[in-house]
Amino acid sequence: MLVRAFVPAHITAFFVPVLQDAPLKTGSLGAGINLDKGTNVFASIETGTLERHVHIAFNGDPVKRDEAVISYSVAERIIPKDFLGEVEIWQYFDFPNGYGFGNSAGGALGTALALSYAFGGTWLKAAKIAHEEEVKHRGGLGDVIAQLAGGIEVRVKAGGPGVGVVDNLFFEDYKVLVVPLGRLSTKEVLDGDMVKEMRVEGKKALEKLLREPTPERMMTLARAFAEKTGLLSGELLELARELDKVLGLPSSMIMLGKGLFALVKEKEVEATKSILANLDVPYDIVGIHEGKPKVGRWVG
Amino acid sequence: MLVRAFVPAHITAFFVPVLQDAPLKTGSLGAGINLDKGTNVFASIETGTLERHVHIAFNGDPVKRDEAVISYSVAERIIPKDFLGEVEIWQYFDFPNGYGFGNSAGGALGTALALSYAFGGTWLKAAKIAHEEEVKHRGGLGDVIAQLAGGIEVRVKAGGPGVGVVDNLFFEDYKVLVVPLGRLSTKEVLDGDMVKEMRVEGKKALEKLLREPTPERMMTLARAFAEKTGLLSGELLELARELDKVLGLPSSMIMLGKGLFALVKEKEVEATKSILANLDVPYDIVGIHEGKPKVGRWVG
Repeated sequence: MLVRAFVPAHITAFFVPVLQDAPLKTGSLGAGINLDKGTNVFASIETGTLERHVHIAFNGDPVKRDEAVISYSVAERIIPKDFLGEVEIWQYFDFPNGYGFGNSAGGALGTALALSYAFGGTWLKAAKIAHEEEVKHRGGLGDVIAQLAGGIEVRVKAGGPGVGVVDNLFFEDYKVLVVPLGRLSTKEVLDGDMVKEMRVEGKKALEKLLREPTPERMMTLARAFAEKTGLLSGELLELARELDKVLGLPSSMIMLGKGLFALVKEKEVEATKSILANLDVPYDIVGIHEGKPKVGRWVG
Repeated sequence: MLVRAFVPAHITAFFVPVLQDAPLKTGSLGAGINLDKGTNVFASIETGTLERHVHIAFNGDPVKRDEAVISYSVAERIIPKDFLGEVEIWQYFDFPNGYGFGNSAGGALGTALALSYAFGGTWLKAAKIAHEEEVKHRGGLGDVIAQLAGGIEVRVKAGGPGVGVVDNLFFEDYKVLVVPLGRLSTKEVLDGDMVKEMRVEGKKALEKLLREPTPERMMTLARAFAEKTGLLSGELLELARELDKVLGLPSSMIMLGKGLFALVKEKEVEATKSILANLDVPYDIVGIHEGKPKVGRWVG
């Protein structure tokens, strides 16, 4: 049996980390965008062997348990204890790991959904397991619940699936420009001095967004958050200012990655492309994924 | 400005009413299916008049305030107090009103989403308003939150949007056969003697479904619920037994309408059609709507 799950990449615009003892109460407040590129997980389940094996591969390359501890933990919780056979979990990422696209949660949620589809489970149970393992192993706080909501999302109550509450903004014909330039360690940022400022600025941004809940306002608030917390500075800030010259809405920083993102109207796409070619940075222009992740039997 | 919202028809398979003082805590536990037919709401907003008018029409015919009290209440809460202009809300239903397809909630939620899109709001705020008005005016208890979830849904914690929790089952290539035969008053059933039995049987069904969360199990439990509560009896039960002869899974009763529904595999569709033609009852075979309702600017 071969099952495929697609989980959208998720970019956080601004956030407030909310840490509790219970993983399902841990999460984040904030806002972000789900993209129509992201993580594809193919789970192949073969029975009829005398042993039980679970293998995980990232972009075609097998990874060891300690390199994929979240997905292995998710898999072990969903595959029945008495199952004998081969489970192969192939994860393919459209964006690089560590760049702030929610790949960790994408792999965890995609694995949970695909294996739950195969072994008997539900969406909510699968999502809870993915969130819990994300939180325990510090993969992320709010990506799973955001990816479940799709679209342009606002986390209005922190927590995992079934506990946290996610709202959605209405939006028109936007595409998303992403400029992925490098990694940023979520762990280091959350352990650092900035986190106090992030809590203050993130809460302010959320309150303001809920008073005027539009994608345009979200981008303005995201940019203010990125600059005020000191996360967006130096060369990255200069590049953001270059992009601002040609875009209708402010660009902002991908939370948390060394990269920028912006909302681009369909009619601005061609002009944006030619300007980005001049700036000589890697970029992509993608759609917004609305609604839930996709799961189903895969017929090659 | 013209905005369209599509809200899936929702059939309840079994349920437990949960009544509280606060409308957002009121709702239901249970399970059901969202269809790819349902309610289309077109909201036309014209400014530039000196007065404020709100008009609602069902299937092209204008309806008075007391014939559409839920949708009028929703509209008045979302249209800004100081708005001057004409708002026309055209609701089109694919299934007849009162037959158990969640038309009331479809109209309420579709109106809330379309007007929130036009006047500035969010998905969650719109959905809360629709749920609250549904509950206050006894349109329904669980349809709004079920319609937001899409697919084959299981209400595991009762309440409105942001309070209740809805799970989803995984499913394969099912179509839904519906046999709509007449009205059944939700109010009369909820006020009657059956409601005690429904609470007992509904809770049992939910517990059993969560232990074995599959669409097949849901249909078996739905049928047991319908028979044990006494809702499915007489001619309708006889017809259900006729359908059972040719279908792989048990048919069951639409909660709450005089009608039946069943899950049909793609490959069974043709055979089902020819048998239904012989039974001489109205029927439709439709798809399952996955994910959220649709909202967007309508370009005629």
